[in-house]
Amino acid sequence: MKKFVNDPKNYIPEMLQGLALANPDSLRYVPEYNLIMRADAPNDDKISIIQGSGSGHEPAHVMSVGKGMLDAACPGDVFSAPPTDYVLETIKRVASPKGVLLLVNNYTGDRMAFEMAQEFSEAEGTKVRTLFIDDDVSVQDSTYTVGRRGVAGNFFVMKAVGAAAERGAELDEAVRIGEKVNSVTRTMGMALTACTPPAKGSPLFELPDDEVEMGVGIHGEPGRRREKLQEADTIVRELVDAVADDLPYASGDEVALMVNGLGGTPISELYLVYGIAHRLLADRGISVARSYVGEYCTSLDMAGASVTLVRLDDEISDLLADPAETAIRVF
Amino acid sequence: MKKFVNDPKNYIPEMLQGLALANPDSLRYVPEYNLIMRADAPNDDKISIIQGSGSGHEPAHVMSVGKGMLDAACPGDVFSAPPTDYVLETIKRVASPKGVLLLVNNYTGDRMAFEMAQEFSEAEGTKVRTLFIDDDVSVQDSTYTVGRRGVAGNFFVMKAVGAAAERGAELDEAVRIGEKVNSVTRTMGMALTACTPPAKGSPLFELPDDEVEMGVGIHGEPGRRREKLQEADTIVRELVDAVADDLPYASGDEVALMVNGLGGTPISELYLVYGIAHRLLADRGISVARSYVGEYCTSLDMAGASVTLVRLDDEISDLLADPAETAIRVF
Repeated sequence: MKKFVNDPKNYIPEMLQGLALANPDSLRYVPEYNLIMRADAPNDDKISIIQGSGSGHEPAHVMSVGKGMLDAACPGDVFSAPPTDYVLETIKRVASPKGVLLLVNNYTGDRMAFEMAQEFSEAEGTKVRTLFIDDDVSVQDSTYTVGRRGVAGNFFVMKAVGAAAERGAELDEAVRIGEKVNSVTRTMGMALTACTPPAKGSPLFELPDDEVEMGVGIHGEPGRRREKLQEADTIVRELVDAVADDLPYASGDEVALMVNGLGGTPISELYLVYGIAHRLLADRGISVARSYVGEYCTSLDMAGASVTLVRLDDEISDLLADPAETAIRVF
Repeated sequence: MKKFVNDPKNYIPEMLQGLALANPDSLRYVPEYNLIMRADAPNDDKISIIQGSGSGHEPAHVMSVGKGMLDAACPGDVFSAPPTDYVLETIKRVASPKGVLLLVNNYTGDRMAFEMAQEFSEAEGTKVRTLFIDDDVSVQDSTYTVGRRGVAGNFFVMKAVGAAAERGAELDEAVRIGEKVNSVTRTMGMALTACTPPAKGSPLFELPDDEVEMGVGIHGEPGRRREKLQEADTIVRELVDAVADDLPYASGDEVALMVNGLGGTPISELYLVYGIAHRLLADRGISVARSYVGEYCTSLDMAGASVTLVRLDDEISDLLADPAETAIRVF
């Protein structure tokens, strides 16, 4: 295993310490609960938004905390749902009188932790709603999931409800917006290589040098099939076809197009993939109004990428265009 | 080779097409000269800033074109300097009456191409100055370099002169600022793995599973030495010591700290590295006023990272804080 790591069991806490040190004005780290929160949370004038999940998907979700995005993120260990009491404590610390919105990618472990935390919080009088995200078209049911998995498209739900919250939206309105965004968002990814969890120290699954996993999950779950490595045009066509045919997206649609790197693929390749996807959509009469190229939801050091489409309307476009500030920035 | 690639000889043009498609309002791509320029360049009210280099270091430099940064970038093929006539044409297309500033990382091939282009441009009456960047403390002279190499610290020169240019700085003033930033900027990197150039199809150099290259160059040039893979604390201490002792940076200094990923290392590891570096600097009495964690200057899919320090004064801090807009963005 060639990684920057000390004791593997401190991998996530040490990452979170670094994150907090790099953002002393905007973020607070609460080590007892593995929790990253906005320094200015809670804000009584807005609903509070929390997302949690296993770690290893950074920048999702701890690096998505900030103005216009999340109020807090409570990650579990690598690829493990956060414990219920961590979620509960996170809710307590950032709860606003306007309510709390929990965003949960659709995995059984995450659902359980967040549903229990919601029950406990409601019993204590906190107003809580939960929104499940399931944008992955690859498979129905999977290793850790009943139904579809939630993957990189989750960014658009965070961004839209985050913007709505800053504008003062009530909890029910934010849920309506988030459900709408999720309903018009579709993703499929593929792996060129497996990833290596620090605590395991070796690749999570075996993928021969000449094969790829089409439709891979972000925890290395199997996708639709293994196939021989092919040129980029062929791979990207398969991803775009799977995504575009699913909703389906139709000629005349205006979309946001995201090409998300899974962790080990450099940005030069992601832009090459983006160019192919953009042209394939143009061939279908689908026009790209907003572009996102980079890492949004990764799987540690996995080489590979996913393609996400969001069908835009005026409301969604407008919310996606609002400003936001998180740890992930260039300047 | 597991990459998103069609014909390897089209790797760079296809990446640049994708970059232009993702940024239709702000960037223009001129395929005849491999050139990415601001859609609104030249702007007669400001000096024009150009950087070129071999490709494979993205986001440097084609994804650093935009308001407050570069007016154009003319990349060569992977790890190859751009041809002189490409540089010359780039100067012609974005030249402003206030003058043109060429930023060149200190590699012999790049120096030759840019120095010849400067001569030709001056002969045609264009006002041109060139600024060489050599922030890498690892080695004196290297495979492609006389003197020190220019690496990730180059970002700070681009950012500072880019901001000065937007404020209306004259050419000589921008050169003064750029030289000052370069003089207080130091970097050292290390490789966990080699990178694989698409046209070669195999790793550029051999690095055993239990060894790392300390002080590696961004084209895989040898650094100070090979050593056994060690825990993150030990690796980062060696990088921070080499960088901090070089200028040297002293107790009481205020710095910008960049942890730059070399392409294959995920952001979770970069924040872990950042946390260690931040604490080691605190032990030396050096305080971090600005933080940069992510990919700024890569070496294709190489796993590894570099650490950069910039000693800040009011002028540099102020210029670094100015807004800028490039293709690399989250939202």
